[in-house]
Parts: sequence; structure tokens; C-alpha cells
Amino acid sequence: MTIYGELLIGGSAVRGTSGSVHAREAATGNVIGPDFGGASATQVEQACALAERAFDTFRETAPEARAAFLETIAQNILDIGDELVERCMAETGLPRARIEGERGRTVNQLRLFAAVVRDGTYLDARIDPALPERQPLPRSDLRLRHIPLGPVAVFGASNFPLAFSVAGGDTASALAAGCPVVVKAHSAHLGTSELVGRALQAAVTQCGMPEGTFSLLFVDGYELGQKLVTDARIKAVGFTGSRRGGMALMKAAAARPEPIPVYAEMSSINPVLLFPQALEQRGVDIAKAFVTSLTMGAGQFCTNPGLVIGIDGPALDAFIAAAGEAVTASPAATMLTPGIHDAYVTGVAQVCSHAKVRTVARGLTGAACQGQAGLFSVTADDFLAHPELQDEIFGASSLVVRCASLDDMRRVVEKLEGQLTAALHMDESDLAAARSFLPLLERKVGRILVNGFGTGVEVCHAMVHGGPFPSTADGRSTSVGSLSIARFLRPVCYQDLPAALLPPALQDGNPFGIPRRIDGKPEAR
Amino acid sequence: MTIYGELLIGGSAVRGTSGSVHAREAATGNVIGPDFGGASATQVEQACALAERAFDTFRETAPEARAAFLETIAQNILDIGDELVERCMAETGLPRARIEGERGRTVNQLRLFAAVVRDGTYLDARIDPALPERQPLPRSDLRLRHIPLGPVAVFGASNFPLAFSVAGGDTASALAAGCPVVVKAHSAHLGTSELVGRALQAAVTQCGMPEGTFSLLFVDGYELGQKLVTDARIKAVGFTGSRRGGMALMKAAAARPEPIPVYAEMSSINPVLLFPQALEQRGVDIAKAFVTSLTMGAGQFCTNPGLVIGIDGPALDAFIAAAGEAVTASPAATMLTPGIHDAYVTGVAQVCSHAKVRTVARGLTGAACQGQAGLFSVTADDFLAHPELQDEIFGASSLVVRCASLDDMRRVVEKLEGQLTAALHMDESDLAAARSFLPLLERKVGRILVNGFGTGVEVCHAMVHGGPFPSTADGRSTSVGSLSIARFLRPVCYQDLPAALLPPALQDGNPFGIPRRIDGKPEAR
Repeated sequence: MTIYGELLIGGSAVRGTSGSVHAREAATGNVIGPDFGGASATQVEQACALAERAFDTFRETAPEARAAFLETIAQNILDIGDELVERCMAETGLPRARIEGERGRTVNQLRLFAAVVRDGTYLDARIDPALPERQPLPRSDLRLRHIPLGPVAVFGASNFPLAFSVAGGDTASALAAGCPVVVKAHSAHLGTSELVGRALQAAVTQCGMPEGTFSLLFVDGYELGQKLVTDARIKAVGFTGSRRGGMALMKAAAARPEPIPVYAEMSSINPVLLFPQALEQRGVDIAKAFVTSLTMGAGQFCTNPGLVIGIDGPALDAFIAAAGEAVTASPAATMLTPGIHDAYVTGVAQVCSHAKVRTVARGLTGAACQGQAGLFSVTADDFLAHPELQDEIFGASSLVVRCASLDDMRRVVEKLEGQLTAALHMDESDLAAARSFLPLLERKVGRILVNGFGTGVEVCHAMVHGGPFPSTADGRSTSVGSLSIARFLRPVCYQDLPAALLPPALQDGNPFGIPRRIDGKPEAR
Repeated sequence: MTIYGELLIGGSAVRGTSGSVHAREAATGNVIGPDFGGASATQVEQACALAERAFDTFRETAPEARAAFLETIAQNILDIGDELVERCMAETGLPRARIEGERGRTVNQLRLFAAVVRDGTYLDARIDPALPERQPLPRSDLRLRHIPLGPVAVFGASNFPLAFSVAGGDTASALAAGCPVVVKAHSAHLGTSELVGRALQAAVTQCGMPEGTFSLLFVDGYELGQKLVTDARIKAVGFTGSRRGGMALMKAAAARPEPIPVYAEMSSINPVLLFPQALEQRGVDIAKAFVTSLTMGAGQFCTNPGLVIGIDGPALDAFIAAAGEAVTASPAATMLTPGIHDAYVTGVAQVCSHAKVRTVARGLTGAACQGQAGLFSVTADDFLAHPELQDEIFGASSLVVRCASLDDMRRVVEKLEGQLTAALHMDESDLAAARSFLPLLERKVGRILVNGFGTGVEVCHAMVHGGPFPSTADGRSTSVGSLSIARFLRPVCYQDLPAALLPPALQDGNPFGIPRRIDGKPEAR
């Protein structure tokens, strides 16, 4: 494969005619060719029109056909081979092992959704048979299935160039649901996006899916991304990125003549709670594991541990000392883009110069595009008095909040905004204390974990990668795991339809062989 | 029981201190005592604070306890006896049979949710067990359940004084989910609201639920209703009413520092499609059934058939003649409130005076508060050129669109906004034509029915009472049927929690005995 810098609009590859964007090598900031033409308003419309046209056909593909399509995408991505890994390494500055691991995750994610589509539970098919003899009124025959919302706009994430970008979680779950997808490529990895986009485009052809099932757009500037969200044919949005970016999309979507759901995964500082016994017994070990999680991938994870909460005293001092030592020794790491690096430097500088914040340690310095880790501390009272200290700093920076007591820890947690994750470090004798925090944490976060860190998000059935606002735009959803398909579905009821008009999922013979509920009880199969 | 005009805030009954509202007899517009004190800002806050305080306890009540609570509410409503029926008849102008039937529906709805809570499928409990030996990385133990969103504000509907008001569908599904509820009573049936509210309040005490589980507020004016939606402790809103009212709540909810979901059921004209063969064979019978549906309950149903679409010709002429005859003979009927009556008169007057609209028939006139049915017709081209003809007129008014062909019918349907229902009248030889409309209709409506009318919404598992905007604020949901509980839930994941910290729904022994999925497959039970 080669990279041409072309938009993929349905089955064609064309040069964007509205400005251009450049790929850059993360480590140097140098431009890597080719340049990528930006989509014009007309080209955005073409992609949306094709998606709209594809929708009715694509959404009624049989489970096996749609599953095979998802698996073909996975195989095509693997088939790109090392060209994809090398381009992705150059564009993101991430090491080979990470990129190869992420490719595996991306492929497994597509295969998981193939299994979800074959299984069919996600359709939540229900049949309440007619009761013609019921008194005082007969009951009609009522059947329910879920159908996809319509074409979905996906905004690729900077920090997962494969797993949350062109063929990543949002795209995979939307396609699995039966929604055509129009992807706006993230400018942080344009060549990677085109390579994966071509693999996906090829799968559309190979599997005989309608051509508008997938399009990939490069966009020069802010307005044309907004245009994608406000196009009347787009019925939902998936986004991973900054709070400002996500809020702008939420606003644009809510202001449409027909408002649509936005699934924006935005910002989270992922509190780590250190309970007394664990801190006393294993504080130094926890500190080392914490810094490993903090500095992994230059700290560029949505689930990065940006806040540590513990009770002041010798054990917390020892934790901070050990963590500080590890941070001091941590090498600077190339960040995804110069813009992300600049934002990180600005954010850290603000914390450094904050009157109430003590700098515990800074990591090693490096090249111009590299982020220098940072560890800071503050008292609970000062943290509570300064809400700006809750702002996410995207990168390897974390703040330790020194509390006077468990009640003080609780006050800090109560003031937190919605988060993706919370991690509890606890031992046997911390059980009662930890238990008392659970109701509060359940209301604040999407995932609660014990004796670990939130980085490393398993793609499985029980995962929730989501949480109350502002960690996401819609805390009722997850963007990782099989449940993420639910974001792109809505229920439709069919009353007294003749057999010939019923969709297969609801026909008497159950031709798809899916799980269904009859009068609320599982159907015998 | 007696009606005191008091707010029910948690366990207490107090006089509202901010203005007052009056109950009126629908048939005469005369005030019926007592007067109802309006909630002050402080009283709204008290209700929200109590709901917030109740939340963590109420949401963790065992399934059996919560189910018994719902059943106790149902029994307490029945136990009010005839006082409820008579007060409701006076306030709404609806006949005894309707109110008794609606009471039955309300009680059955509460009992259905009791069964849903006992069954536990709604929790969507999932367990992906740890894989400590997995390469290259072990997998943690991951478990997912759904938890309720938090306190819910419910705005009672005018047109279902029992089934969609104080203890109606929104309240029943929110309580079933584990959400405390603060109801803003609809001014159209204040005494009915207090009677039902006291029955619900008594159930809270009888069942030992925390007192903030339920509050009932009367509100004088617009601002205090908005205040309820913007209170930080409220986490979701249920509303049934006008498009303007629903849109105002959507806007207020989206502008909060923490935006929250609004489930507003707003406006729908529920297209009826007459296919050629059915029209030819049974046009006159369909016309009679149509007018019965149109005029039932003075046409005050969300699913009222406000639009009929058919192909011009002798068969449609015969349909219109028969429907016109039935409308002409239809008695005027008391509307729910003078305000609703005024809006109906204004809406009908606009249609009557519309240059492109022909008045087919008007029903009998009656007393000042009574609505006079209306049937109108327009050509497809004129309908398409005048989007204002799509506006809902709440009451017994309907517009027949005369089309030149099936393609013309399709053009009309394509231009429709989102709807709750669409009804197809068809015979065997209309199958192909009807089939060709289904994909379009699925995208426009929440319920498709054949050879019937949308009025009469079954409360069951397969019902969808919802639809794309603007029929509702959120087309991903239903406000009737067991699936409506999903509106008030969000997923939470628990990773590597010690057994002692796991909620019962996710414990190894499955103490609640609910359906769960292990690695995506149903757990053996």
C-alpha cells in the first residue's frame, strides 16, 4: 500500500480540495509526505449522502454477513504489515511494542463485535404475542427489536492511533450496530489513518457492502468538522479528545433542528485512593507501580492517574518520596504532537507556579517534543479551595492530595467531577473504610478498581469506559467493550404486522437463531 | 382521604409558600377547593435534598423489597376508592369508564415493574472472570451492573391523570430503577395528584423506604419547574407535554454545569397510511374506525391520528365522505383544561383559514370547554409546501393528504418529522407497497402498526412509546413498557474487587438469582 493523501469517499479515493494538512514526525516535528488535501464542504456532503444511501441496505445485512465484514476489516489491517507499524511509530512517537499491541487490540475489538453481531443479544428482541380473548380488551401482537440510529460521524482520537481511530472502538461498534460511518481523521496520524481507511474501504468492496458504508475525511480547520456534526444525515457522533473539543460538538449537536446524541470521551484525572493499611504496608511498592502507570505512553491515556488521595503522615511521606524518586529517574518521552506537548508544558507550568502547590519531583528533560514527568502535592483544604487543580493535564503529571483523615478524603472525592475510573489501594483491614467510599465512587466514576491502575482498558463484555460528565458527554454509555454497541441503537415496535413484513429477527421461526424474550421470558431454543 | 392542597416533601405534608394554584372542574372551568400552595424555591430544594439523601439507601434495596414497595403503591391507589375516580372525573372531564380503566392500567404498570425488578434482567449483570495466566498480559476480574442515575424529576402529563402522572409510567420506571422521584404535579388535576401522592407517600412509610424516595410539588409559575430541572441533585427528567415545554426543559438541562438527560414526550401527528387495495375494499370501515380513534377522549392522546395519507380517487373520496359523516355526527367533548381547549380552538382556526386546506367536516358544537372535532384535506404538493401543516393540534383534528401516487405518499412521509407511531392500512395485495415503506417508517417512528390505530398503548415488554425527535427528546428510549426502566440506568464496572465489596448482583453465589452473562454467555442457573 502507499499513502496518497487522498480522501476516501465511499468507493473512491479523491484529493480534498479545501486546504491541506500535513503529517509530522512526532519526534522531530518534521513534515512527512505526502500532504493531505482537506475535504471541502461538498466533499463532506458527498460522504454523508453516500452514508445515508447505504444505511437501509447495510443495516439489514444478515448477522453472518456483517460479522464477516468486521472480520475482513481486521484481517486487512493485519495484512498491511509493517508499513502500518512504521508509519504509526513515526507519526506518534510511540514504540513498536505499543503499536503492535494496539494493532492486536484493534483487530480483537473488531472480532469481538463480529461475535456480538452473530450472538444477537444486542438486538434485545422481544415478542408479546396477541391475546385475542383477553378481557376487557384483546391484546395486539407486539414485537420489538433495536435498529441502528443512522450514519455516525467518528472523530479519531490522537492517543490511540489504531484502537480509537479510523477502525477503532467507535467505528467498530457503530458498524456492528449497522450504522455507516464517516470518520474525520485525527491530524496527529494522517498516514496511519489513510492506511487503515484503505483497508476498511477494501473490506466494504470485498464483502459487497454498499459503498457509503465507510468514508474517511481529512479536514483542514475547525468548521468542516462541525459541518459533519450538523449535517442532517448524521444521526450520532463518537469523539475522544479534549473537553473543549467535546463540548463544542455537544453544543453543535444540541443546536441542530434535530438534536442528536454525542458520545464524547473528554477529560478525567482518575483519582487513586490510598487507604491507611495499604499505604502503611506497601506504600513504596504502590508508589513504583503508580509511576509506571503515570509515565506509560508519556502519560497520554484517558485513564492516566492524575490525582492521588491519601492521609498525611509518615506513610504518605514515604509514598511521596518513593514516587518522587521514580519520577526523577523517568526519562522524557516523545509526545503525540507538538500541540499536545505545548498544552502539557502550559498545564504543568500552571501547577508549578500555583501558590498552594509543592513540586515534589520532575522527570528527566529531553528533546523539544518530549514531555517531562511531574509530581506535585497540595493539602486537601487547598485542593478544595482551588477547583482549577482538578483540570486534566494530558500527560505524565499527577497531584498528591494530603488529607487529614478519611473524612477529609471523602470531602475531596465528593468535590470531584465525573471520572472514568477510580482506583482503591487497600488491604484487608481497609475493607470497612473502602466500603464506605463505594456508594460515592459509583456515582462519580464508570469503573472502580482495586489495587491496580486504570491504564490498560480491557476490551470485553464487562468493561465500562465511560463515566459521568465531564469524563464523557453521556454517562449512560461506554466507549470500550461490547456494551458500546448500545450507543448506536434505538428500539422500534411492530404491532400486528403480517408475517411477510416482519424483519427476520422477529419472525416466528427465529431464522437468525438469536436470543429473544417472549412475554418477558427467555424463548426456548 | 381528604385533599388539603399540601405539598408532600418526603415524609411531611406542608403548605407551599410561593403563590397558589387552583383546581378547576373541566366541564365548567369553576374552581374546586382547596387551593394548592405553590412550592417555594426552598421547598423545591428540600425535596431535592431529601431525594439525594435517600438515593444511596433506596438504590441498594433488595429486589424483593423494591418490588413489594411498587406493589404497595398500586394497592394504596386502589384503596383510595371512588374518591379518586370522582375527583379525577371532575378535574379532567373524562368519563368514569376511562378513569377506572386508566387506574387499572396504572396499577398494572406498577405491578409490571415489580416483576421487572424481581426478574433482574434489566441490571444487565456481566462477569468476565480473571485470566491470570493469559499471555502477554493477564486479565483482571471484571464485573458490570447498571445502577440508577440519581434523583429524577417527573413532570406529570395532563392527558393521563393517573397513568402518566404522579404514580404513572415515568415515576414507576424511575422508582423501579432505584431513583428517588420528585414529581411536579400537573395543574390540570391537582386534587387527583395529591390523592395519589399521599398513597405513594404512605407506601414509602409502610415499606420502610427512606423518606426522600418521593416528593410531590405544586408549582405556581414556570420558573420553579425550571428550578427543579436545574437543581444539581436531579440527574434526569421525565416529561410529557407540549413541544415548547419539552424544548424548554431540554435547553435548561443541556445548559447545566452537568448536563442531564431529558426524556420529553412532546408532539406527534401519527400518520395513517391508506394503501390502495385496503382503501378500495374497506375504505368506509376504516373511516369509521379512524373517527372513533380520532375522537376518543376528545382526541387528547399523544398517539391521536392527526394525519391521513392516501392516493386521490373515488376510493379516497368515499373514505373522506364516510369519515366526514362520522365527524359531523361526533359530539363535542369536554377538554382537559380551558388552556388546552383554547390552544385547540386556535390550532383548528389556523387550519380552517389556511388557503390550501379544505374543511371536510366539523363535529357538533357544545359547551364552552368542549372541543369540536374537525376533518380537513389538502393536496400532497400543498402539504409539502407548507411545513406548518405538520404542527400537532392537540385534540380531535385530522388532516387528509391527497396524493397522486405511491411515490407521492413516499414524498410526504419523507418530509415528516419524527413520530410516535405510523399506522398502515393494507390488504394482501398491498404487501409489496407496504414493504417498500417500512425502512422509511422505521427511521421516522417508534411503533409501526398494521390495520389499527396508535391510540391504546399496551403496557408490556415489547412496547415502544417513543420515537425520533421531536416526538420525543431522545429517540433511543420508550416511556411506556418494561424497557422504559433503561432510561434511568447507567453501567458501572468493578475490577478486581474483593468479594466482600461486590454488590450482591455481582457476587459469585448470585444471591439475587438474576440472569447474568459470564464471558458474554448466559450463566447456568
